Amino acid sequence: MRAAQYEGNGHIGVVERDPAEPGAGEVRIAVAYTGICGTDLHVLHGNMDSRVSVPQSIGHEMSGVIDAVGDGVDGLAAGQPVTVMPLDWCGECPACLAGNQHVCQRLTFVGIDTPGSLQEQWIVPASTVVPLPESLSLRHAALIEPLAVACHDVARSRLAAGEVAVVIGGGPIGQLISLVAQAQGATVLLIEPNAERRAFAAAHGASVVDPLSEDAAAIVEQATGGAGADVVFEVAGVAATALGSVDYARVRGRVVIVAIHAQPVPMNLHRVFWRELEIIGTRVYERPDFERAIQLLERGAIPAEDIITDTIPLDQTLDAFHQLEQGGAMKLLVDVRKADR
Amino acid sequence: MRAAQYEGNGHIGVVERDPAEPGAGEVRIAVAYTGICGTDLHVLHGNMDSRVSVPQSIGHEMSGVIDAVGDGVDGLAAGQPVTVMPLDWCGECPACLAGNQHVCQRLTFVGIDTPGSLQEQWIVPASTVVPLPESLSLRHAALIEPLAVACHDVARSRLAAGEVAVVIGGGPIGQLISLVAQAQGATVLLIEPNAERRAFAAAHGASVVDPLSEDAAAIVEQATGGAGADVVFEVAGVAATALGSVDYARVRGRVVIVAIHAQPVPMNLHRVFWRELEIIGTRVYERPDFERAIQLLERGAIPAEDIITDTIPLDQTLDAFHQLEQGGAMKLLVDVRKADR
Repeated sequence: MRAAQYEGNGHIGVVERDPAEPGAGEVRIAVAYTGICGTDLHVLHGNMDSRVSVPQSIGHEMSGVIDAVGDGVDGLAAGQPVTVMPLDWCGECPACLAGNQHVCQRLTFVGIDTPGSLQEQWIVPASTVVPLPESLSLRHAALIEPLAVACHDVARSRLAAGEVAVVIGGGPIGQLISLVAQAQGATVLLIEPNAERRAFAAAHGASVVDPLSEDAAAIVEQATGGAGADVVFEVAGVAATALGSVDYARVRGRVVIVAIHAQPVPMNLHRVFWRELEIIGTRVYERPDFERAIQLLERGAIPAEDIITDTIPLDQTLDAFHQLEQGGAMKLLVDVRKADR
Repeated sequence: MRAAQYEGNGHIGVVERDPAEPGAGEVRIAVAYTGICGTDLHVLHGNMDSRVSVPQSIGHEMSGVIDAVGDGVDGLAAGQPVTVMPLDWCGECPACLAGNQHVCQRLTFVGIDTPGSLQEQWIVPASTVVPLPESLSLRHAALIEPLAVACHDVARSRLAAGEVAVVIGGGPIGQLISLVAQAQGATVLLIEPNAERRAFAAAHGASVVDPLSEDAAAIVEQATGGAGADVVFEVAGVAATALGSVDYARVRGRVVIVAIHAQPVPMNLHRVFWRELEIIGTRVYERPDFERAIQLLERGAIPAEDIITDTIPLDQTLDAFHQLEQGGAMKLLVDVRKADR
């Protein structure tokens, strides 16, 4: 079988490997599509070498069909279309015991800490496999994982129908949050300096604000009758946007920190006090977020074809990474199947 | 009648004034005791001159007896023992209309934005008056307002019986939070560098940690079986304690920012993300917090006599401020009544 593998320091090679058999409790998937994301770019540039075993296939946004099932696996069978929720938890730490397995204190992220889906045959723990309805195309199903991120972020925000959400940042996750929020009956104002990304959001129901030429806080205040937004999603990951995020929130509003801020950043705790705000952390997803993402795609609430910028063959995986890096793409999929399939 | 009044720049004078009559919707209270707090110290030093009309009586932690009632006031009568919830809201802004009157967007804080209770006869809006049970002494009743702050902080944290709370800072509010948290069945670890304050907390049921000589995060982790605390109250108001506050919290724990941080401070948003924490703002109180504070004092759950360090006559009000500033006192009360009463 063919596999694209990260070979350290910006290199990805495509190699031929012998397929392995799934062990007890494991499932082997014939991968169809693998989406690539910002985290994969971090891996490519060596920022996550402490977690990745070089060489290693990466990738964790995927769809495929089960082609072999190991011993002791119930309820899954060859031929089933599936995706994977790439979290493998210990089941024993305080977080797991409290029911928060998705943020297990010893979490293994499948596709980073273990091999990922940029290979024709991928072996994963059966517990991570999520069956798909036959009606959903495998192309669209490759969006489930990032969409589940957005569903989790929106769930953490406790956003209700009729509420106003501000989304700071119009990259893929910001756009998906905007779509999920609207699917739940919220009104969305998306703040983004890039004109193409603003146009994408505007074409899909959000009001948009260019923070470089407009007074975003004044626009939010006016749009909410002087109250401020019910929920703010900080997805840009810049110190200035984190600092300003609380300015858009109404009294008792919720500010969800979606972007990863690797270093401490100044936060306006006076505003948090004055308006009794909540700042909410959010990480990965839980199983209900995957189910919700599947439902949204199935009923056509997510414009999957508009989100998928391009589909690239496995042997051009490195080109796909470079194209993503240039910033013009929303979501790039790698078609992992042989061209003659 | 006598009144202690802030006269600008560190000065407090005691003067004789003609008593006024309560207008429509107002109540006049013969003040018994007025506690002084950190905010009053800020006023004394001129930090709040933009809000205070010099000269002006300040003070807002109080108890007394109604001695006159204006037109149109129902349910209140001369002779009733009362305290005051010193918030006067507009009733019309988005926060008020959403039911969050206590953080009204045009809130008047009685005793700062309008005259306070360091005077023998104090006129307030009837809506701010909270009747007291006869069984509660007026001396103890002067603690209701700061205790209501603590009740509000604990309510905002959603602390449940059996949970573990970390309180950073053992000043008056930190101690009251520790007491309220324990009264609701929580276990408290209080972090405080001052030995006297640690001794006070330890004498009243908390485990204590000296952050200067002990590894507070390791102690919290050990005390919680590696999980971390359910709730953290940041009451110290120092940039370093705000930054470190998230280190004590378990996965999905809540960090309540009680102290006022006037300037933005660095926050560890990576930890907020990694553990899906919530950072919760809290400000003043709501009416149920006053009722809860009264119940706690009435049933003896709060060691009022230990909290009241000293009671000082009105004509020595400035001395009381100086004594508070020196840091040894927990709560100082000014006895506003004439000595011969």
